[in-house]
Amino acid sequence: FSSIYCLHAFRHEPEPTCPRHLQRSSFQQVYTCMHGDEVILLLICLIFSGREVIQSTKEAMVALQRENPSLQPVLAIIQAGKDDNLLEINEKMAGKIGLSITQICLPKECTEDEILEEILKLNEDPRVHGVCLHLPPASLTSRVLNTIKPEKDVDGISDLNMGRLVRGDMSKGFVPPTASAVMELLERHEPPLTGKTVLLVGGEGPLGVALQCLIERSGMVALKSHGSSEVLQRQVMQADAVVLLQTGHMNLPPTWIKPGAAVISFEPSLMTDDHAAEMSSQPKIGHLIAAYRMQNVVRSSSHWLHEQQYKAWRLRSLKLQPLTPVPSDIEISRAQTPKPVDQLAEEIGLLPEELEAYGRTKAKVRLSMLDRLHAQPDGKYVLVAGITPTPLGEGKSTVTIGLVQALSAHLKLNSFACLRQPSQGPTFGVKGGAAGGGYAQVIPMEEFNLHLTGDIHAITAANNLVAAAIDARMLHEATQSDKALYNRLVPSVNGVRRFSPIQIARLRRLGIDKTDPGSLMPEEVSAFVRLDLDPSKVTWQRVVDTNDRFLRKITVGQASTEKGQMRETGFDIAVASEIMAILALADSLSDMKNRLARMVVGTSRSGQPVTAEDLGVSGALAVLMKDAIKPTLMQTLEGTPVFVHAGPFANIAHGNSSVLADKLALKLVGRNGFVVTEAGFGADIGMEKFFNIKCRASGLRPNVVVLVATVRALKMHGGGPNVSAGAPLPREYIDENLDLVAGGCRSNLRKQIQIAHLFGVPVVVALNVFKTDTQAEIDLVCQIAKECGASDAVPCHHWAQGGRGSLELAQAVNEATSRPNNFQFLYNLEIPIVEKIRTIAQKVYGADDIELSPEAKAKIDYYNQQGFGTLPICMAKTHLSLSHMPEKKGAPTGFILPIRDVRASIGAGFIYPLVGTMSTMPGLPTRPCFYDIDLDPVTEEITGLF
Amino acid sequence: FSSIYCLHAFRHEPEPTCPRHLQRSSFQQVYTCMHGDEVILLLICLIFSGREVIQSTKEAMVALQRENPSLQPVLAIIQAGKDDNLLEINEKMAGKIGLSITQICLPKECTEDEILEEILKLNEDPRVHGVCLHLPPASLTSRVLNTIKPEKDVDGISDLNMGRLVRGDMSKGFVPPTASAVMELLERHEPPLTGKTVLLVGGEGPLGVALQCLIERSGMVALKSHGSSEVLQRQVMQADAVVLLQTGHMNLPPTWIKPGAAVISFEPSLMTDDHAAEMSSQPKIGHLIAAYRMQNVVRSSSHWLHEQQYKAWRLRSLKLQPLTPVPSDIEISRAQTPKPVDQLAEEIGLLPEELEAYGRTKAKVRLSMLDRLHAQPDGKYVLVAGITPTPLGEGKSTVTIGLVQALSAHLKLNSFACLRQPSQGPTFGVKGGAAGGGYAQVIPMEEFNLHLTGDIHAITAANNLVAAAIDARMLHEATQSDKALYNRLVPSVNGVRRFSPIQIARLRRLGIDKTDPGSLMPEEVSAFVRLDLDPSKVTWQRVVDTNDRFLRKITVGQASTEKGQMRETGFDIAVASEIMAILALADSLSDMKNRLARMVVGTSRSGQPVTAEDLGVSGALAVLMKDAIKPTLMQTLEGTPVFVHAGPFANIAHGNSSVLADKLALKLVGRNGFVVTEAGFGADIGMEKFFNIKCRASGLRPNVVVLVATVRALKMHGGGPNVSAGAPLPREYIDENLDLVAGGCRSNLRKQIQIAHLFGVPVVVALNVFKTDTQAEIDLVCQIAKECGASDAVPCHHWAQGGRGSLELAQAVNEATSRPNNFQFLYNLEIPIVEKIRTIAQKVYGADDIELSPEAKAKIDYYNQQGFGTLPICMAKTHLSLSHMPEKKGAPTGFILPIRDVRASIGAGFIYPLVGTMSTMPGLPTRPCFYDIDLDPVTEEITGLF
Repeated sequence: FSSIYCLHAFRHEPEPTCPRHLQRSSFQQVYTCMHGDEVILLLICLIFSGREVIQSTKEAMVALQRENPSLQPVLAIIQAGKDDNLLEINEKMAGKIGLSITQICLPKECTEDEILEEILKLNEDPRVHGVCLHLPPASLTSRVLNTIKPEKDVDGISDLNMGRLVRGDMSKGFVPPTASAVMELLERHEPPLTGKTVLLVGGEGPLGVALQCLIERSGMVALKSHGSSEVLQRQVMQADAVVLLQTGHMNLPPTWIKPGAAVISFEPSLMTDDHAAEMSSQPKIGHLIAAYRMQNVVRSSSHWLHEQQYKAWRLRSLKLQPLTPVPSDIEISRAQTPKPVDQLAEEIGLLPEELEAYGRTKAKVRLSMLDRLHAQPDGKYVLVAGITPTPLGEGKSTVTIGLVQALSAHLKLNSFACLRQPSQGPTFGVKGGAAGGGYAQVIPMEEFNLHLTGDIHAITAANNLVAAAIDARMLHEATQSDKALYNRLVPSVNGVRRFSPIQIARLRRLGIDKTDPGSLMPEEVSAFVRLDLDPSKVTWQRVVDTNDRFLRKITVGQASTEKGQMRETGFDIAVASEIMAILALADSLSDMKNRLARMVVGTSRSGQPVTAEDLGVSGALAVLMKDAIKPTLMQTLEGTPVFVHAGPFANIAHGNSSVLADKLALKLVGRNGFVVTEAGFGADIGMEKFFNIKCRASGLRPNVVVLVATVRALKMHGGGPNVSAGAPLPREYIDENLDLVAGGCRSNLRKQIQIAHLFGVPVVVALNVFKTDTQAEIDLVCQIAKECGASDAVPCHHWAQGGRGSLELAQAVNEATSRPNNFQFLYNLEIPIVEKIRTIAQKVYGADDIELSPEAKAKIDYYNQQGFGTLPICMAKTHLSLSHMPEKKGAPTGFILPIRDVRASIGAGFIYPLVGTMSTMPGLPTRPCFYDIDLDPVTEEITGLF
Repeated sequence: FSSIYCLHAFRHEPEPTCPRHLQRSSFQQVYTCMHGDEVILLLICLIFSGREVIQSTKEAMVALQRENPSLQPVLAIIQAGKDDNLLEINEKMAGKIGLSITQICLPKECTEDEILEEILKLNEDPRVHGVCLHLPPASLTSRVLNTIKPEKDVDGISDLNMGRLVRGDMSKGFVPPTASAVMELLERHEPPLTGKTVLLVGGEGPLGVALQCLIERSGMVALKSHGSSEVLQRQVMQADAVVLLQTGHMNLPPTWIKPGAAVISFEPSLMTDDHAAEMSSQPKIGHLIAAYRMQNVVRSSSHWLHEQQYKAWRLRSLKLQPLTPVPSDIEISRAQTPKPVDQLAEEIGLLPEELEAYGRTKAKVRLSMLDRLHAQPDGKYVLVAGITPTPLGEGKSTVTIGLVQALSAHLKLNSFACLRQPSQGPTFGVKGGAAGGGYAQVIPMEEFNLHLTGDIHAITAANNLVAAAIDARMLHEATQSDKALYNRLVPSVNGVRRFSPIQIARLRRLGIDKTDPGSLMPEEVSAFVRLDLDPSKVTWQRVVDTNDRFLRKITVGQASTEKGQMRETGFDIAVASEIMAILALADSLSDMKNRLARMVVGTSRSGQPVTAEDLGVSGALAVLMKDAIKPTLMQTLEGTPVFVHAGPFANIAHGNSSVLADKLALKLVGRNGFVVTEAGFGADIGMEKFFNIKCRASGLRPNVVVLVATVRALKMHGGGPNVSAGAPLPREYIDENLDLVAGGCRSNLRKQIQIAHLFGVPVVVALNVFKTDTQAEIDLVCQIAKECGASDAVPCHHWAQGGRGSLELAQAVNEATSRPNNFQFLYNLEIPIVEKIRTIAQKVYGADDIELSPEAKAKIDYYNQQGFGTLPICMAKTHLSLSHMPEKKGAPTGFILPIRDVRASIGAGFIYPLVGTMSTMPGLPTRPCFYDIDLDPVTEEITGLF
C-alpha cells in the first residue's frame, strides 16, 4: 500500500513492529463526529478534493505537453518483491493524469548496493521525473534516501527536501504526498480550522515534523500528542482536528473526540465495526496520496522542462583590483581564483549533462545544447577586427576580452567571447601566450596556452594518420599486384568477403554499382585498389604543434624497409592543417565527417583528385575528432564565459574561431546578449574571410564590427619609421605626433572602415590606449574615425583596468547594434574563380588588377574542371599591408596583385590563391621563450609564460 | 552579538523589524522563579555547563592535534560592516579551546554575489573548517545559506543540515549552536524535565523546529506558543520550562511563569530593572552558544581529518550478465554503463579535491594523495607476467583485469589494476585496442584506446620541442659568432643582462661559478654559448603517435631557410620516447623534472654529453608534462578501479606501467588490498625489467608473480608448428595434443617460473583458457606447473565470464601472498656493465655467454667514462624467444647472445644493449584497422574498434 510506504519512509529508525503487521492494516480516512450527519459531509469533501487535485494536475500536464509534445513523464517505483498494490493505485492515478509508471522489482532481500544502482540509473535517466521507494524500513537507509536526486524525489524523503520544507522554501523541494493529502483534508474542513488546534498523534518522525510546519504555516495550531493515555485523552478532547499518524495498538475510543472535530486516521482500529463496513467502500486516503504524488511528478517534469529552456543568466562576476604598475600576465592570472567551471556553466544556463569537465577550469560543451535551445533567438553578433597591424600586434584579443568583461560584469548584459585556440609552438618560441593580457585575460592562462582540452593534438593525430595512410598506400600499391592488393583490401573473413561501407563509398565514386566483391571485373578491381597517387602531386603535409623549422622540407622513406619509395615533403605547424579549418567551419558532427571525407590529399597519375575517403581513413578521422568538435568553456579574469575553439591559420586558411562555438554562444546569451568573436590579422584579411567564408558557412549575420586601432600603428601608416619586434621603438612612437596619427587615420583606418561598410555592417572603432598616448592623439583618432563613417570611436583601457576600462566601448557597441545593418556578401559564389579573386583584390585591397602566374591559371582550370569552381576564396596574403608588399603602409593604390599559385582545401571548402610566399612552419630564435619557462615542483606554479 | 546572528540565520523570511533595533537588544539567559533562591542555583548550573562543553571540546581538540600536529582549525566569520562583537565573543572562546578565527568584513551594503564569492573561497580553503554568517536577515537568502559546504556549516543553517537534524541522522550534520545551548540548559535542569512540558515562545522559524525535534528526542514535551495573549498566558502558566526565542515587543509578565519553572530568554524585556542589573555581570548565553559553535568546528575538523585518513572502500560493483557467444569488445563495453568517475573515486576513498575529471569516465588523480596517505601501509603487490608468447599474444591484460574483477567485485578484497596506456598508432594499424577483451575490459574501451587524458600527446609535444631545440641550436651556432650568440642568449632587457636559472645550471656544469654576464672571459663565453653538438652523434629522434613507416629514416633541413644544415634522422612511435620511460619511472614531480633535465640528446664534437638542460628546454618540458604525471583513473566492466598511466616500449625501454600509479594504488587499496600491475612481453623481458629497473626505482617489493600461459603457446614451445598473425591456426592448436602441451610446460613454462624464483618471488600460473582447450590439457598444465615449483596453477575463464571466471585465480593469488617471499635483485648496480649484461644473458635467457660488437664495447667504455656505469640494464631483445632468435621456442640453451650496440637513456636511468634490430616505428598494413572504424554522427557511437 502506498500509505505503508509513505509512513515508513519517514521513520528515522527501523520500525520495531514487523512489516507483516503493517501490511495487514489498511489506511483509511475518516472524518467523524459523535453527533448527527457530519460524517457524510466530510466524506464528500474528500472525494471532491481528490477530484480537484487530479483535475488541476491533469491540466498542468496538458499544458506541459502542449509546450513539448514529446514529453511523457515517468514515475519509477522501486520495490522489494512483486507486490503490485502500490503499482495499481499509482497506475490508476497516473492514467487519469496522463503519466506513465515504471515498476522496478528487486528481490525481497535486496542489498543496499542493488537499490543504489537502480536509483543511480533512474537519476541519470532523462525520461524519469520521479522516483518512489516502496521498500522495507530497514532498506531506507540515509544513503538510500539521499541518493535520490532531490529534483526527482517526489516523495520529499531526502534530507535536503525535508530541510527545504522546514525552512519554508518550496520553490525547489517537494512536499511529501502524505502531508499534502492530510493538509488538503484539513484545509477543506468546514468550518475552517484557522486558529484551531490540530493534534498529531504518533508523529515523531520526519512526516510529523513536516506536517507540523505545514499546519502552522496555514494558520492552524499544531500540537503533538505526548505521554500517557491520560494526557492524550485531554489533548484529544481539546483538539479541533486529530491526525492519527501511527498509533500502534493504542486504542483511541471515539468518545474522546470533541464533538464536531475532524479525524484523519491511518489506522483501521479506530472505527467500530459498523463504521468500518460503511467506510470500506469509500475512497481511500491512499488515492489522494497517489494524486499528490502525481502532482509532484508533474511539478518535477515542469521544473525539468523549465531547466531545458533558456534561462536568464545569474552570472557572478569576479572582482578585479587592478594594480599599478600592471604585473606580468601570469602573475595577474594566478592572483585571480577562477570559478569552478561547472559553476560558471550553471550560471549561464548549461545543463550538467551538457558539460564534460577537463580538470576544474575547462570543460567541453556538448553540441546537444543546440537542439535544446533550438527555438531560442540568437544574441547579437559582434566581430572584432583590426587595422593593418605593426609586427607587434595591436591587441585585438585584449579588446575582445575587455569588451565582454565590460558587457557582462559591468553592464550586466550576457556576453560571450569566442576565441581561437593558440598553437603551442609559438608559446615556446617568440610570441608567448595568446590569452589576452594585463587585466583582460582568459584564465588560467597557462591552461589556455598549453594542451587545453587536446583539440590540436587530436588534429595532429588525424592529420598524420592521413599522411601515414598516403605513404603506406603508395608503398603497397608499388609493391603488390592488383590481385594481391584486392585480396588484402577485401579479405575473406571466416570464408566471407565483404566491402566495408567506406569501400562501397569509393566504388560509388568510381561509378561501380556492385556490392559483391566476387563480381568485379579485373579493370574494376584495378580501379578500386589503385589510388595511383602521383608522388609529385601529393599536397598533404604532416604537422606538428612545435616550431620546428628543420621539418619545413624533408625527404621521407629513406629506410630500406620502404624500398626506395622516398619523396620530398614537409611538416606544417598543426594549426595549418586543413583539419583545423574544417573544425572551425563544421556546423555539426555529420558535417565535419563529410568534410573530412571530402579532403583532397593529392592527384592520381590520371589527374583525378584522391580523397581521405578513398584512403579508407575518413571514419577513423571522425573518431579521432569526436571530442575536438565540442567547444571548450573557460572564463575571463572577471568570471565571464569564453569559448575557446579551433584556431586555423589566418593566411592559408580563414583565421577565425569556430562556427559551432559562435552558434552555441549565440543561443546561450539570448536575444539581448552579445557574442564577441575575433578575426585574425587586419580587417582586409580576417574580416573579409569572416564575412565571405565563415558567415557563408554558418548562415550567421554579424550586427557590428569593432575595429581595433592603436596610435602606434596609425603613426606607422601615417609615415612613421619601421617598427620591428625586438628593436627599441623610435621616438615618433613615444612622443606626441598628431600629423602622423592623422595620416594613419585618413589612410589605413579609413580604408578598413570602408571595407566593413562594403558588407553593410556598422563599425565601432576601439582605440587600444597605450600609456604613451596623449589625450590630443586619442581625441584626434576618435574624431577622424567618426568623420570616416564609424558609428562611434572610443578609447579603451582594459589592459590596465579590465572591463571597467572598456565600458565606453561596451556602450558604443550596444548602441551600434540598433543601427541599420544591410549585410551582404562581397561576391556571388557562381562567378568565376578569377573574378572572385579580382573582386577581393580591387574592392578590399585597393589593387588596380590581378596578375595570374601560368601555374595559377592551370590550377584554376583544373579546379573548374573538377567542379570546385563555386567555392569561396581564401586569400593567402601578408597581413602587414593592404597590398601584397609588407612595406607599403597606409592605403596603397595603383598596384597589380600577383597570384603566384592557387591551392584548394576541398574539405574545408575554399580555394586559396597564394600572394607571395607563406611560411607554414615558424622557427625557434636563438633564445626561445622556453629559457624562462619553469615549473616549481612543490607549488606546481609555472613561471615565464607571458 | 552571536545571538543576533543565530536568531536571524533561522528566520526564513526577511525580518520586518529593522536590524538596528535588534542590535540594541542584548540576549541573556535567565533562570528565574517567583520564590526563594532558585535563581542562584540555575545560574551556577549554566556556568558549570559552559565550562564543561569548553573542557570537553578542548580535550577533543588536543586529541586531534596529537593525531595531526599541523592541524590548526579556523572558524571564518563573514559579516557585513565592522562590528567586532561577535568576533570578540568567539575569539575568546576559540582561544580557550585552541582554535583560530578569521573575520571577513564585507561592506554594510554588500551584494549576494560578494557574499557568495567569500563563501566559495572558504569552501575551497582546506584550512577553514567552519563558516559562520553574521549578516542582516535580508542577506541570508536560500542561495547564500545553501552555498556553504554542508561539512563546514557549523551553525547548521543549510537546508541539508536542517533535514538531517529533522530526520535525526546527526552522523554528518551539525546542531545549530543556539539549539545546543538551549538543550544544554534544559537537560541540566534540576529536577529533570523529562516528560515535562517545554514551551517555545516565538519559535516559528527553523530554529524552533530544530529545538522541538531535539526537545522531543530527549524525552521532554515540546509545545509551541500560539495565538492570543490569553492562550499564551495559559500555556506559559502550565509550562515547566519556557524558551523565549523571539517575542518582539510582547510583554511577558514574570507573574505568568509557573513557580519553579525554568526560563531561557533571548529578550531583555522580561526582566525588571533590579534583575537586569543583577544579571548583567553573569555569563551570557552568547558565550555558551559560542562554545557550542567551537564544538562544531572541532567536530568538523575531526570529520575532515577522518576524511583525510584511509577509509575502507565501499565499492559498488557493476553487475555483469555475460552472453554466449561472447559479443565484440566494443559491444560489451558499450552495453555496460560505467559509474561516473567521481563516484568511483569516492568509493575508493579519494577526496574530491584530489580528482581532475576528464569527461565523465576518466579522471586524473593528484599526487598530493601520496602525502595524505603517507602513513597508510601498502597493499599487496602482484605482477602479471607471461610465458614467451606467440605473435598473437596470450592475454596478460585480460588476466590482469579479470583478476581485479574477481578480487574486488567477487571476493570483496580491495584491488586495483595498473595498466599501460596503449599507443594510438596500433589502434588504427593492426593490433586494435588494448583495454583487455571479452568480459575483462576497461571501459569505455574507446576512451582507453584513443586520446585518453592526453599524456602521450604531451610526451610527443615535449619530445619534439627538444628535437626542434636541437636543430635550431645547431643552425644558430653554425651561423653566428660567439658574441652574437651570447648577446642573444643573454640579452639586455631594460639595460640589465641576467642569466636565467637554467643558464646558471649550465654554467655550473661547465665549472663556471659566475652570475654576472659581464664577467665571463671569452673562452667561458664560448664554452657557454656553444653546445657544439656533433650532428652525426645526435641520438634524439622526433616522435609521432602514428604508425608512419616513412618517417623511420628521413633527411631534415632541406629548405633554403635552414642554410644547408640538413642531416639524416628519424621518427619513433611516441611511446618509444625516453620521456615516456621517464614518466613511467618518476616518483614525484621534482624527480621527473630532474630526469628530464638529465636526458642526453647527443654528444658534442669534444665528446661531452649534451643534455636537455644544456638546451635550456628542461623547464618547458616539465611544464608540458605537469598533467601527464598524474595517473588516470578508469574502471573495469565490473566497476572496479583501474589506473592507466605511461606505456613505455617494452624493447628499447622497460615496458612497465608507472611507478606513481602503483604507489598511489598501493595506498588506496590498504593493507589487505591488492595492486595488480602488468609487465610487457614475456617474463624474461618485462618481469626481469620490472624487478631490476622498476622495483629498484620505486623501492617497492612484489609479493607474487602471476605467470600467464595458454595451451596454444605451450603447444608452440612443445614443438608445434609456426603461429603467425593473419594465417589460420594449424590443427595441432585446435585438437587435443597432450604431448605438445607437456613439452611446452617442461621447457618454457618451467624456465619462466625459475626466472621468477631467481628473484625470490612466489609464482601462480594462470592458464588463460580458450574454448578449444580440453579438460585433460588444462589439468596437465596445472599439474606440471605445480611440479615445476609454482605455488599454484589454475585455469581462468574471465574472457567469457568476467571476474567470476577468475575466482580461482584470485583465491590462489590471495593465498600465495602469505608464502615466504625473499625478494632480491639479480645483480648489484656496482658491477661492470658487461657483467650486468652477462648475468641477465646467462641466468635469465639461458645463454652460455655474450659477445660484444666493437661498437658496443666502445659505447660501454664511453658510458663508464661519463659516469653512467652504475645504471641498470634494459635489454632490447625479441620477445618471441628466450634467446635472441625468434624462431627458437621452448627454453633454448647453448647459444651466445650477441650485443650489437649499446645505448643509454640517462634521464630514464638505464643502459640498453641492442640484441638484434629493434623497430621503433610500426607500419600500416595494406588494409589497416581504420577501414572498419567509423562514427555514427547521430548516436555518436563508434564502430570497428576491437
